[in-house]
Amino acid sequence: MAMHIQLYDTTLRDGSQGEGVNFSVQDKLLITKMLDDLGFDFIEGGFAGSNEKDTEYFSRVQELDLKHAQICAFGMTRRRGVGPEEDAGLQAMLSTGTTCCTVVGKTWDLHVTEVLRVDLEENVAMIRDSVGFLKSQGRRVLYDAEHFFDGYKANPEYALETVLAAQDAGAEIIVCCDTNGGTLPDELAEIVTNVQKSVSIPLGIHCHNDCDVAVANSLRAVDAGAVQVQGTINGIGERCGNADLVSVAANLAIKKGQDVLQGGEGVKHLTELSRYVYELSNMNFRSNQPFVGRSAFAHKGGMHVHAVNRLASSYEHIDPELVGNERRVLVSELSGRSNIVAKTTKFRIDHDQELMKKILDRVVELENEGWQFEASEASFDLLVKKIAGTYEPKFRQIHYRVSVETAGQKEPLTEATVKLQIDGDGPIRHEVAEGDGPVNALDNALRKALIPTYGNLAGMHLVDYKVRVINSSEGTAARVRVVIESADEHDVWSTVGVSENVIEASWLALVDAIEFKLYKDEGEVGAPLEEAAASPE
Amino acid sequence: MAMHIQLYDTTLRDGSQGEGVNFSVQDKLLITKMLDDLGFDFIEGGFAGSNEKDTEYFSRVQELDLKHAQICAFGMTRRRGVGPEEDAGLQAMLSTGTTCCTVVGKTWDLHVTEVLRVDLEENVAMIRDSVGFLKSQGRRVLYDAEHFFDGYKANPEYALETVLAAQDAGAEIIVCCDTNGGTLPDELAEIVTNVQKSVSIPLGIHCHNDCDVAVANSLRAVDAGAVQVQGTINGIGERCGNADLVSVAANLAIKKGQDVLQGGEGVKHLTELSRYVYELSNMNFRSNQPFVGRSAFAHKGGMHVHAVNRLASSYEHIDPELVGNERRVLVSELSGRSNIVAKTTKFRIDHDQELMKKILDRVVELENEGWQFEASEASFDLLVKKIAGTYEPKFRQIHYRVSVETAGQKEPLTEATVKLQIDGDGPIRHEVAEGDGPVNALDNALRKALIPTYGNLAGMHLVDYKVRVINSSEGTAARVRVVIESADEHDVWSTVGVSENVIEASWLALVDAIEFKLYKDEGEVGAPLEEAAASPE
Repeated sequence: MAMHIQLYDTTLRDGSQGEGVNFSVQDKLLITKMLDDLGFDFIEGGFAGSNEKDTEYFSRVQELDLKHAQICAFGMTRRRGVGPEEDAGLQAMLSTGTTCCTVVGKTWDLHVTEVLRVDLEENVAMIRDSVGFLKSQGRRVLYDAEHFFDGYKANPEYALETVLAAQDAGAEIIVCCDTNGGTLPDELAEIVTNVQKSVSIPLGIHCHNDCDVAVANSLRAVDAGAVQVQGTINGIGERCGNADLVSVAANLAIKKGQDVLQGGEGVKHLTELSRYVYELSNMNFRSNQPFVGRSAFAHKGGMHVHAVNRLASSYEHIDPELVGNERRVLVSELSGRSNIVAKTTKFRIDHDQELMKKILDRVVELENEGWQFEASEASFDLLVKKIAGTYEPKFRQIHYRVSVETAGQKEPLTEATVKLQIDGDGPIRHEVAEGDGPVNALDNALRKALIPTYGNLAGMHLVDYKVRVINSSEGTAARVRVVIESADEHDVWSTVGVSENVIEASWLALVDAIEFKLYKDEGEVGAPLEEAAASPE
Repeated sequence: MAMHIQLYDTTLRDGSQGEGVNFSVQDKLLITKMLDDLGFDFIEGGFAGSNEKDTEYFSRVQELDLKHAQICAFGMTRRRGVGPEEDAGLQAMLSTGTTCCTVVGKTWDLHVTEVLRVDLEENVAMIRDSVGFLKSQGRRVLYDAEHFFDGYKANPEYALETVLAAQDAGAEIIVCCDTNGGTLPDELAEIVTNVQKSVSIPLGIHCHNDCDVAVANSLRAVDAGAVQVQGTINGIGERCGNADLVSVAANLAIKKGQDVLQGGEGVKHLTELSRYVYELSNMNFRSNQPFVGRSAFAHKGGMHVHAVNRLASSYEHIDPELVGNERRVLVSELSGRSNIVAKTTKFRIDHDQELMKKILDRVVELENEGWQFEASEASFDLLVKKIAGTYEPKFRQIHYRVSVETAGQKEPLTEATVKLQIDGDGPIRHEVAEGDGPVNALDNALRKALIPTYGNLAGMHLVDYKVRVINSSEGTAARVRVVIESADEHDVWSTVGVSENVIEASWLALVDAIEFKLYKDEGEVGAPLEEAAASPE
């Protein structure tokens, strides 16, 4: 019978320790929403009290209407020689208002005496007091045993003493952490099996990928009896990263027949989830990522393509649709082929074969040029309108010009001019504006030209702006993709532009953002990004 | 006692099936030389007779004076109904002139009947005839059993019959291939153990990473008795790639105490090998790659850094020098003074309290303005020089100007001018250049102005370019951070620029990139990461 294995996501805390990862509060809330939609059991939102961003997150996450996930606040055991009620860290955890607190404590005697520099008994007291205090305040407490495997190998009696202290003080689970990522599967399984004999509450597992076996270790721990796997989306995290929960979830559900992700539909959306997190963290997709990468079911060798055409299973270990991915043969770059119909159902257009094929062909073509629509639904919606023949541009560019000029070390002067024709054969407007940068100047000039006709544009503003080099092998001469997030009082939507020129790419994304706003206010395009991207139907 | 585990590299054949991988003959020869230097046992050079490039490779590789490696020609069993001596594929293998031939044959009955469409007996005859023929021509024959695990699960008797045919015809090893990458470690180990009871020659293992467990599978197979591991450098290969021999070698040698790589010194050069192959295959480094990635021994959290300084093993599973990598301390708001001290030890500057405090204060101040040095070590190094008073600018900006101009839907015209004074009171240069975008145009103009004085800049190029909005609440008027990655023939370094203006931020990062290159070539800034990492003491 399928057993439910809990998935505990720490993308927002341990994942954000990864080099170059930097989520805004808005990013963190969007990821939380999507993880919850997909059925994750626990979401570790941040390190309580460590910075203002996490404090704001914990405050705003309470406004989300979550269906499945428990939000966890992460923190350390109390400092030495301080009562738990006076410990700033524990107070910070309490003040997050989350139902669950995840406390990390030391397991490895060497760490206690050499790094923490407290005596072994005080460390045990710190664990007991911290877990007990949070419990006494009505919180559910999960205990992360740091360096569990190294500690157990060095001094098994002491390692056990620390986790039993957490258990006896009221923790609901002991999570065995391979903090340094140095443990191989056999050793790890043996230790998990042994520890279970002494601990009466369930065990969880938290692996890092320093030996390139974090996923295998997580699966092995589940085989040995662990009921919770901690990890991050796409395996982001410090050093070599954490166990990739995408691979863990897919393996557990599809290969091991276990029940993961509440609601039963989450596994089919793993590809979408993976790409959404890459997009929000401004990281490049790993095209060869297991299960969800663009190349995961791509066939290049002629022999393979031939065989796949004869018999899909001949070179595919699973049906790619099980994880929301798709087979690619030859040039098709499209990730969400099966989603095209689903994504266009909100339009008042005929879903005839021919139109679907036209949309698909165009998307494939654009994706080959570096466009991506996963996180830019507004541009996708406009593209559908264009192909369906229901799109009429609200304005036409005659030309634009941007210049950035500086003298010495002063801030540069930036100026943009735009010349537009409004609404097919309407008036021509020629305007100039300054800005803090070229995109801001262009945006200002565009507004100056358009607001006399479209007053509702005054209620729209840009929220985020991201640039990514697509083919980086040629340095700055490579193609860039710009994604712009816009908002008005009701909605948030994202648009995309691609060009060799960052200004032109920004222009394309800006124009889409404005067109989308105008169509949206006329009720002519569907639900924007936040809604659409986060809903797993 | 340490057992020698053979490493069989197929980067040049199976690896080149990876999406976007395309080696020239010269690349293949260079990689062959390095693999041989490091002590790899077998190098699969290509698919015999499949294309002219591989034919040229097999001809030219004979001129190399190899110390350790056997070059293998890869090919399929004979076609049905043809004698082996008349089979073009087998003849192509022979004509490569290699000592070793690797023959791949079908194990899975479904594949034989549905894909190959021959009867089961004919397939066995094809295997027997092909191996026997090559053997009779004086070649060593390795047998790759394709889809071995899927085949064994479907029909163990038939799977065994195919590999016994290869054994009886004179193959020296049976390599069990998990061609679709769908097998998990437990199942794989069980099958390897079972098969060993029926086969009298040694077994090898060839894994793909579709379940994210290729390295774990390879290690498990060795535990179960396999004596040869096939894989690729950095795990490149079709779909999700092959087992990464870098991780396999490091785990076997360091974690399992086995003897890998002839000559005994190869493991210390794995970081160098990994980066060399990335460079030749024109792929970006994977910074979080286990053992050899740039972030593999990087420490960000202040708590971790503090601990690492007290006791290296506290957050490092191995000494990074064992694989030719190095520890890196990332500077970030999470870290604090212990990071600064650790990071500046490579400079020839006094580590007096006052200077450390000045650096820390400045870093905190800049980080509050949106700078980040954790992924921009070169800018950090220049910052330290500036604060320590050992920095003299190589050139001074008098002004720059960039303009982007378009007419209608055409690609815009981009032009940049720069006016610089060289070296304090040197000549003034005023130059103009075009580019694919504003940053490219600026870069081109800068080079035009500087190369007459600093000829070594010609050997430097931009590798990657990233833009991120820092405070996204104000849209395009917010601050942006640009990170530029540059490289020359020896090193890779990253620089950062922050401004409200993306052009100005790019300018700052460009200037740092150039200054770093100039100081580096004078030996005036510390070894950037890659050099230090790749040079094996």
